[in-house]
Amino acid sequence: MNIIKLSKNEITNINKLYQAKYRKETNLFIALGPHLNNEAKKYGHLVKTYTIDPSYSGILISYDDMKKIAKTDTPCQVLSICQKIEKNDLSDKVLLLDAIQDPGNMGTLMRTAKAFNFNTIILGDGCVDIYNDKVIRASQGAIFKLNFRQENLVDFINNNKNYIFYGTALENGYNIKEINKAPKLALILGNEGNGIKKEILNITNKNIYIPISDTESLNVAIAGGILMYLLQ
Amino acid sequence: MNIIKLSKNEITNINKLYQAKYRKETNLFIALGPHLNNEAKKYGHLVKTYTIDPSYSGILISYDDMKKIAKTDTPCQVLSICQKIEKNDLSDKVLLLDAIQDPGNMGTLMRTAKAFNFNTIILGDGCVDIYNDKVIRASQGAIFKLNFRQENLVDFINNNKNYIFYGTALENGYNIKEINKAPKLALILGNEGNGIKKEILNITNKNIYIPISDTESLNVAIAGGILMYLLQ
Repeated sequence: MNIIKLSKNEITNINKLYQAKYRKETNLFIALGPHLNNEAKKYGHLVKTYTIDPSYSGILISYDDMKKIAKTDTPCQVLSICQKIEKNDLSDKVLLLDAIQDPGNMGTLMRTAKAFNFNTIILGDGCVDIYNDKVIRASQGAIFKLNFRQENLVDFINNNKNYIFYGTALENGYNIKEINKAPKLALILGNEGNGIKKEILNITNKNIYIPISDTESLNVAIAGGILMYLLQ
Repeated sequence: MNIIKLSKNEITNINKLYQAKYRKETNLFIALGPHLNNEAKKYGHLVKTYTIDPSYSGILISYDDMKKIAKTDTPCQVLSICQKIEKNDLSDKVLLLDAIQDPGNMGTLMRTAKAFNFNTIILGDGCVDIYNDKVIRASQGAIFKLNFRQENLVDFINNNKNYIFYGTALENGYNIKEINKAPKLALILGNEGNGIKKEILNITNKNIYIPISDTESLNVAIAGGILMYLLQ
């Protein structure tokens, strides 16, 4: 197999995909590493593979070119260009995210949601772009398996009265131990600094909290992990 | 209050504290932001405060000098120089960490451990330095409240037979639903890529797992969060 030299133009276009604006324009995003390449292929998202290792199928490029397109500390073997795929199904367990801004939290919440069958995520206003490369990395492939919708959370709650909506709040809520599962339920998690917006907390079925000792709050991905485990 | 100009030497010495080597030499570490400054003071770790805001007590410095010593994207109001404090108590619930390498995971595990009364953390070989600034940030002040010991985990297990040791493994374990709490128990979590070393898994009382769907594994901080919640 011959090494293909990438044109300056091609390198520029790939690098543009690290910006949300261009991902939106092209409907494409980047996933790094062999694991995500396999997952992208398996779930029909894979458009193109660049690799420095001839044992992977894809466009063989030089180490120098890979360094120009792969945003990682350690050398990356495989870079995948993936397409976004819209899926509109609504699973029985749904996760609603209100302005989750940290890419690591977002990706970790996706990975956990998949593990506990919260297969649909509703992205409210102010969330980080889920196709951000740090989100993709933390999601560990869950990005390819879940359904996502970008939707105002107040509208979503008002339009889906067949679901039980659980908000999360530090005060004035029910202890998670007192909560029963419901066949169709939605868990709402809020912004890292400010929690869930009041207008949303006001229209949930119940707001719940996790009892904690001598700590102001849990990290939102940890709280989400415990709650999804208990409510799955 | 007058603005104090930092000497070049002082700036260099503060910046050295971003390296584990110098933190070890001096027994000092850096914590950024007003919340951690309060917590450091409250728990007796605070040695010196640098601030650009005269409403904080401490050494008032210029914005330019703060930029030279505070490693953050957004301007930092307060930088605290803190001292390490050795505490050797062993709490009834103990967290054992085998080669946790990601600073975000380490800090989040500390924050969660504090919330669920796992007040002692045993740091096995290969863990990231807990005084790393990213660990401190993710710990949200838990660093000041917990007891830490650096110790070989095999030795610790062999020397503390009055504890029930729960390992975590994806295979050949007990479902977490089948586990009972014990008055004195230790939870062991393993490396992000490789899990817990075999020699450690072999000498636990029980190895447990969290059932998951269509996902290879949970993030270690999430798994730790769920398990500490259940075992607290």
